[in-house]
Amino acid sequence: LATRLRPRLKTARQGFVWLVGAGPGAADLLTLRAQRILHEPDVIVHDALVPEAVVAMAAATPPASMSASARAAIRQSQDEINAILVREGRRPEAGVVRLKCGDPLVFGRAGEEMAALRAAALSFEVVPGVTSALAAAAEAEIPLTLRGTASTLVFATGQDAAGDVLPDWAGLAFSGATVVVYMGRSVASRVAARLAEAGLNPATPVAIIESATLPGRRVISGSLTDLAAYGSGPDSGGPALILIGDAVAQGALGAAEPLVPARELAA
Amino acid sequence: LATRLRPRLKTARQGFVWLVGAGPGAADLLTLRAQRILHEPDVIVHDALVPEAVVAMAAATPPASMSASARAAIRQSQDEINAILVREGRRPEAGVVRLKCGDPLVFGRAGEEMAALRAAALSFEVVPGVTSALAAAAEAEIPLTLRGTASTLVFATGQDAAGDVLPDWAGLAFSGATVVVYMGRSVASRVAARLAEAGLNPATPVAIIESATLPGRRVISGSLTDLAAYGSGPDSGGPALILIGDAVAQGALGAAEPLVPARELAA
Repeated sequence: LATRLRPRLKTARQGFVWLVGAGPGAADLLTLRAQRILHEPDVIVHDALVPEAVVAMAAATPPASMSASARAAIRQSQDEINAILVREGRRPEAGVVRLKCGDPLVFGRAGEEMAALRAAALSFEVVPGVTSALAAAAEAEIPLTLRGTASTLVFATGQDAAGDVLPDWAGLAFSGATVVVYMGRSVASRVAARLAEAGLNPATPVAIIESATLPGRRVISGSLTDLAAYGSGPDSGGPALILIGDAVAQGALGAAEPLVPARELAA
Repeated sequence: LATRLRPRLKTARQGFVWLVGAGPGAADLLTLRAQRILHEPDVIVHDALVPEAVVAMAAATPPASMSASARAAIRQSQDEINAILVREGRRPEAGVVRLKCGDPLVFGRAGEEMAALRAAALSFEVVPGVTSALAAAAEAEIPLTLRGTASTLVFATGQDAAGDVLPDWAGLAFSGATVVVYMGRSVASRVAARLAEAGLNPATPVAIIESATLPGRRVISGSLTDLAAYGSGPDSGGPALILIGDAVAQGALGAAEPLVPARELAA
């Protein structure tokens, strides 16, 4: 196993850590590289959001120490996760996979994990993944950039927009960029109000994709005005992406749920 | 073949088109879904930038009509490519793969292709891919978002920055976003000048990744001041991504080439 794991570390005594993007959720949106690496580790440390089907790809013969470490990381703080990666990576010839939703370097806290691994002088490699915005857009057939309409693409998080100030990406929304807000459910009404106050066209198209590529997927569409209503409905618990911008109107949203419930439209 | 190709179109007489992200270049950064679909088509229409190794994954027995159509699309206009997709997709029970670098919906003109397919009433599906910014950042170990430093990520193109005005994403560069400029080589000095004039810190870290994940890959690093020098050196011909932002400094750039040639540093 050791030689298959670490072709570039022939004489290394300590372990090797892969920071692997698991993709948006569907197991077949993993890359071939990630799949290959998942067949080899001794330890997998993964987030709660990584579907079991992806974790299960980690070998027909699960690594001995997988269960304990894998489960341990789910609800731990980032500092604790960093400590797990360093501890496991220091075992002689260990292969450690840190499996993260989407892409490790996009809202994945991989920057902090890389810093911890470097501080411990551990070797690692980052394996990119399909970040969920791309998969959500693919399912809803929404062009994220569109010639003449959206020449720039912005990824932001709900956390940025939690305050009472206009999010710093608002200027780009005005100039026609497509904005994707990750984890945006709790701030939806706040974002809608701030952008409307700042003068963004209330008819600006909005789509929300929950649980992209997973069972239970929902596509919801409407306008900036309607976005205020999102977040007050029942929470599916799945990750939600909010897409804002004129290019969103080019999506296949005919079958999408309306953002404003039908009873409100009739009132 | 027909039933394997179109499980959801059992009675369809016309074809089906997949718009597939080929990923950044390395064949093993294709998704499992894309690989599966590549084994099935009758026709593949691909860009010149899609590596032969990825195209070659399209079955040990290449589709009869692959060569002609595949080559035909390489140097054609977007209107001509749209016409090829519609013409091929209208053949009874045809399976057509439109293979695009990176992700189809990010600077990939898939919006125009989807519009053409819808206008022709052809069924299609978009398969997301790893966009090259993610792979470039993974190779250079650059966190694209970083808590406390970069909370927003912007993808732009050199075309946006070709004029004499400040690019519309400049405001986000000031607020600490990581900006990735696709196809930025020809506008590098212009972008550097505009951002510096506008007051962005001249020491803002910059990295350039050419031919990410491919043989001939180059990683170049420096600061906003140095960026003006990029573009005047020899052109490798490979696609170049320019990453700008404070988070870039966290990358593993010790072995990167300097943006300013050594003789200039000594002068």
